[in-house]
Amino acid sequence: MSLTADAIWKDVQAIRQQGPLVHNITNYVAMEFTANALLAIGASPVMAHTAEEVREIVAISQALVINLGTLSPVWIHSMREAMEEASRRKVPIVLDPVGAGASRLRTQTARELIAAFPPRIIRGNASEIIALGSDEQKTRGVDSLATSAQAYETARALSKRYGCVVSVSGATDLILQGDQELRVSNGTPLMTRVTAMGCAASALTGAFAACNPSSLHAAAHAMAIMGIAGEMGAQQAQGPGTLPMHFLDALHQVNLSHIRDRLRVGG
Amino acid sequence: MSLTADAIWKDVQAIRQQGPLVHNITNYVAMEFTANALLAIGASPVMAHTAEEVREIVAISQALVINLGTLSPVWIHSMREAMEEASRRKVPIVLDPVGAGASRLRTQTARELIAAFPPRIIRGNASEIIALGSDEQKTRGVDSLATSAQAYETARALSKRYGCVVSVSGATDLILQGDQELRVSNGTPLMTRVTAMGCAASALTGAFAACNPSSLHAAAHAMAIMGIAGEMGAQQAQGPGTLPMHFLDALHQVNLSHIRDRLRVGG
Amino acid sequence: MSLTADAIWKDVQAIRQQGPLVHNITNYVAMEFTANALLAIGASPVMAHTAEEVREIVAISQALVINLGTLSPVWIHSMREAMEEASRRKVPIVLDPVGAGASRLRTQTARELIAAFPPRIIRGNASEIIALGSDEQKTRGVDSLATSAQAYETARALSKRYGCVVSVSGATDLILQGDQELRVSNGTPLMTRVTAMGCAASALTGAFAACNPSSLHAAAHAMAIMGIAGEMGAQQAQGPGTLPMHFLDALHQVNLSHIRDRLRVGG
Repeated sequence: MSLTADAIWKDVQAIRQQGPLVHNITNYVAMEFTANALLAIGASPVMAHTAEEVREIVAISQALVINLGTLSPVWIHSMREAMEEASRRKVPIVLDPVGAGASRLRTQTARELIAAFPPRIIRGNASEIIALGSDEQKTRGVDSLATSAQAYETARALSKRYGCVVSVSGATDLILQGDQELRVSNGTPLMTRVTAMGCAASALTGAFAACNPSSLHAAAHAMAIMGIAGEMGAQQAQGPGTLPMHFLDALHQVNLSHIRDRLRVGG
Repeated sequence: MSLTADAIWKDVQAIRQQGPLVHNITNYVAMEFTANALLAIGASPVMAHTAEEVREIVAISQALVINLGTLSPVWIHSMREAMEEASRRKVPIVLDPVGAGASRLRTQTARELIAAFPPRIIRGNASEIIALGSDEQKTRGVDSLATSAQAYETARALSKRYGCVVSVSGATDLILQGDQELRVSNGTPLMTRVTAMGCAASALTGAFAACNPSSLHAAAHAMAIMGIAGEMGAQQAQGPGTLPMHFLDALHQVNLSHIRDRLRVGG
Repeated sequence: MSLTADAIWKDVQAIRQQGPLVHNITNYVAMEFTANALLAIGASPVMAHTAEEVREIVAISQALVINLGTLSPVWIHSMREAMEEASRRKVPIVLDPVGAGASRLRTQTARELIAAFPPRIIRGNASEIIALGSDEQKTRGVDSLATSAQAYETARALSKRYGCVVSVSGATDLILQGDQELRVSNGTPLMTRVTAMGCAASALTGAFAACNPSSLHAAAHAMAIMGIAGEMGAQQAQGPGTLPMHFLDALHQVNLSHIRDRLRVGG
C-alpha cells in the first residue's frame, strides 16, 4: 500500500468540487469546530441528532459521522436510527468512540454500535481503540495514554472482525484494514492542547470517505491533511489559543505543494 | 423605503447604550458564536431552553430569538412556551427556520410555530424561506441552494399572511414587509465558509428589534451591520478560520464612518 | 492571609506536571472554551453529563465543576449524582450558579445543590452570589449588576453556613472563607464582552483545587491567573473577538515573571 501526495490532493480537490454533505451526530464540545473544519476543507456539514429526523438527513448525506463524546441514552437511540439508515443506503459511516474506556456506557455503546452496524471506518486514539478490545484498558478521560503502536493488535482484530478500516491517531497515525497498513507521521504536539482535534479528524475522515471509495485511503488521506494543516497552523500560531483558527485557514488553503513538502509517510 | 448609514448608526448606538437582553433558544453549534456576536455589538445574551424557566427569562428580555437548528421535541415545547409568553408581553420575536426543507420535522415545526405565534421577523436563507412556502423546495442540509431573488414571491406571501417582516440572506439580502422592500449587498463569500454566521445574523436582528420599533428597519440594519462587519473582518483575515474573530472585533468597533464607507443599498 | 506570586506559580507548575482530570458538567455555550482553557493551563478536561456515567467519571477525576448555565431537569439529576459521588470520594467540587436570580429554577437549583452537597468552592459573579442569599436580588440574564463589595455580606454568610470558600468575580475579585479574605484586582473590562469567561474561571478553579489542598488559595490563585492571562491576552487583542485566543495562549505561556509583574493583590 502506498500513500502519495497526488492521491491526497485528488481527494481534496474532489471535496472542494463536490462539497459533500456530511451528517454529524457529535458531542456538544466539538460541534462548532467540527462544522468549521468541514466548511474549511470544502464540505458541507449538517448537525442533526433527533430521532424524528436523522433518517431523512442521512438520506441526503454523503457520509455519516457518529461521535460518542457527551453521550446520553436519547442520543444513542438516534445514533442507532441513523446508522441503520446509512447501512441500508450504503452511506459510509465513520465512528469515533470518544472516551471508550472511561465509562462502561461509552465502552459498551461503542462496541454495540460497531457490532450492530459495522462502520466503514473506526477512528479513535490509541486508548479508545484498545478499550474496544479489552476491559483492562483504562482511558484517562478523553486523552490517550497509549501510542498507536500499542493499539496495533486490537486494531487488526477489530478490522478483521468487522471488515472495517481502523484509524488510530497518535504521534504516528496507524491506518489499517485487514493486512493492509498505512502510517502517517504529520502533526504537532500542540494539537493535543486543543479540544476537538480528534473529533475534527473523524469529521474530515467522513468528508474523504464521501469522495474516495477506498475507505483505507480516505482514512489515511484525512489523517495526513489533519497533520499537515496542523503543522501549517502551528507555524502561524503562538500557542494553543491561536492554533485552531490557523489550522482552519490551512485546511482552506492547503494545496499540492504543501502536501508534497510536508507529507511524512511511515513512522 | 430607504436605508441610511445614519439610521443604522443610531441603532448601533442604542444597542451599545441600552445593552438589550436578548433571549436565545438556539442550536448547539451556534451558541457560543451567537453569544459572542451579541456581546460584541453591545447587547447582553442569555441562553435558556428549558420549559421550566423560559417564560421567566422572556419576561426580563427585550427580544426573543428562536433558532430551529439541532431541533428536538423537548426544545420545540420550550420554543412554544417562550413564543407564547413573548407574544403576550409584546417582546419582539425573531424566528430562524434553520434547515427548513431538509427534514419534515424542521419544515413543519417552522410552519407551525409561525402560524401559532407570528414572529415580528422571519430570517433565513433563500432555500429555507422557499421551503416554508412549498413542499417542493429541497434544502441541502443547512446551506442555501437558491438566491434571495428566487425566494421573493414566497417571502412576500409569508409577510402578507402573517404580517411579519421576512429577511432573506444571500449575496443580496432581501428584507420586506408587505409591499415595502429593502435590499443590502454587503458581505463577502468567505462568510459562507464559517458556521453559524446566519444564526448570528438572526441574533443581531433580535438586538436591533429590541431597540428599533420598525421591524423592517431593524431587520435591514442588522443585515447591513452583519455584511459590513464581515467585510471589515475579511480584510484582516487570512481564511475562514481567522474570519470569525475579526468579524467580532469589527462588530465591537464599527462606527458611523465605517458604515458610510461600506453600505451598499440595493443589489 | 497573603497571596504571593510564588505560591500561584507553584500551583501552575503542579497543574502542568500533574495534568489533573477535571470533570465538567457545564453549559452548552461554554463547553468548548472551558475545555480549551483547561487544556491551555495544562489540565485535562472531560465533559460528561449523563446520569449513566457521571459517577464513573467522577471516580477517575481530581475535581468536579458544576455549572448551572443552560440548566434542565435531566441535567440537574446528573449534577446531584455527580456531586454525591464527589462528596463521598472527597473529590473537590466547584459550583458556579450561572444566572441565579434570573429564574426560580436557577436560584432554587443552586441553593438545593449547595445545601445537599456543600461544594468546596462557590464561584460566581456578584449578582449570582447575592441571589443565593436573597429573593430580592435580580440578575439581568447572566451578567452582573452588582460589585463584589455588594456581595460581601452574602458571601460571608454562605461561607459560614456551608463551610465553603466563596469566590466572587468583579473588577476586584473577592475570595473568602469564614473570616479569611483575599482580593485580586487583575483583569480587564474587555473580558466582560466575551462569553464563558466566568465559566472558564470556574473550571480553572477546579484545576487549582485539584492541586492545592487549600481551597481558599486555590480559588484565589485561579482568579489571579484568569486576570493576568486576560491582561496578557488583551495586549495582543484588537477587540473581544481576538481576545479569547490570546487569553488561551497566555494561559499556556504564563510564567513566574508574568505573575510577579502583574499580580495586583487587594483592591
